[in-house]
Amino acid sequence: MSKGKVYGVGMGPGDPDLMTIRAHRILRNARNIAYFRKAGRTGRARTIAGHLLSRNGNEIPLEYPVTTEIPLSDPKYHDALSEFYEQCTKIILDVIQRNEDVVLLCEGDPFFYGSFIHLYVRLKPVTMIEIVPGLTGMSAAWTATEKPISWGNDVLRILMGTLPEDVLAQHMQDSDALVIMKIGQNFKKVCRALESAGRYQSAWLIENASMAEQNVQRLRDVAHPVVPYFSIIIVHGQGRRI
Amino acid sequence: MSKGKVYGVGMGPGDPDLMTIRAHRILRNARNIAYFRKAGRTGRARTIAGHLLSRNGNEIPLEYPVTTEIPLSDPKYHDALSEFYEQCTKIILDVIQRNEDVVLLCEGDPFFYGSFIHLYVRLKPVTMIEIVPGLTGMSAAWTATEKPISWGNDVLRILMGTLPEDVLAQHMQDSDALVIMKIGQNFKKVCRALESAGRYQSAWLIENASMAEQNVQRLRDVAHPVVPYFSIIIVHGQGRRI
Repeated sequence: MSKGKVYGVGMGPGDPDLMTIRAHRILRNARNIAYFRKAGRTGRARTIAGHLLSRNGNEIPLEYPVTTEIPLSDPKYHDALSEFYEQCTKIILDVIQRNEDVVLLCEGDPFFYGSFIHLYVRLKPVTMIEIVPGLTGMSAAWTATEKPISWGNDVLRILMGTLPEDVLAQHMQDSDALVIMKIGQNFKKVCRALESAGRYQSAWLIENASMAEQNVQRLRDVAHPVVPYFSIIIVHGQGRRI
Repeated sequence: MSKGKVYGVGMGPGDPDLMTIRAHRILRNARNIAYFRKAGRTGRARTIAGHLLSRNGNEIPLEYPVTTEIPLSDPKYHDALSEFYEQCTKIILDVIQRNEDVVLLCEGDPFFYGSFIHLYVRLKPVTMIEIVPGLTGMSAAWTATEKPISWGNDVLRILMGTLPEDVLAQHMQDSDALVIMKIGQNFKKVCRALESAGRYQSAWLIENASMAEQNVQRLRDVAHPVVPYFSIIIVHGQGRRI
């Protein structure tokens, strides 16, 4: 093992004020800062870091390959991303070999879904790696609705909009409280699943939770059929009142 | 409405370093600080706040009534707690009437289970109240295991140990990733449910996540049958690898 260390740092949901004290301190002292982004975009994690990074810092953007035309089930999708994560691992290990640390910025919490996990499993066997947990996007989303997500004995299920419609509908019907993430292109499918599960009327849509562009509304009031990938849909639990 | 305002502030899981920047700032400037505790104890939320509070601050401990002998299903349990939350509400409103703010310290995230919700629903109609979300105990727990909780399409269910054994077992069998909270006295029941669902061997127990006394082990290696109420049991998801 080399002496350099990797930090996987949760940046929280978007508002820099919702970063943890530890994340804030690590960022300010970071020399090598890596983050994912789409080609030509700043990237959400980098945006949250804002002006906290040192001007002399070495920024290492990790640009996703373009896979929008490839279905998730196609082996080509898997291969393209797998190769990408291998390249990212090499880039980070190159820095580590020089006995320098690398701070990897992660949206939300590093271990809760998200791309970082694919780097983590590659880096973990060969280098020291420390995780700083972060506030999740869903916490910011339910806070934005001004209603508690779960009470008493409520069961909370967290679902990805990428699941098949019938699987989604079954979960939605059986659960007390619901969080649905990865909405974006799956928006209409998720709405149909909520309808057939009888949960559509009590669902909320939160776009860009905790950011300046935050938008909170009941799902039935949504006029636009296009929502950001980072949107979150919530159905609140109705647990034991005291 | 009075001019005073209530802040429901998420204190995070235990390590003060995992508090958000916003929570930290509000605490340092707080004049009236309220928090739940058991009689004769400091209280977890107050412990996290540590030395951040002003020495001249007005501390308002809200002491739970003793209900350990009363089963949850007994109406007396409900009545005792209901009366307690009514009293707490009055105490806080008394301060608000003097046009002063009250900062209510909450373990973890204010809207994610927890006692604060019962005050929130009483205070919300009659006063201004701002919620500062916090890092959850479960985030600290899965971070402590050094393994991601959920990947790709994993469904994550969050269960309370207070649920009946057969209900727990059914959820455990059907889910990808699992978080089980409120363990304490329910420890043996939760273990039996995990056994019958075939998830016992892959479960982890995290006691006092992110605190000095943090203890992480596979559930099957746990030698002591008594675990703290704030323990969390985790079964990691096995979602799509790339």
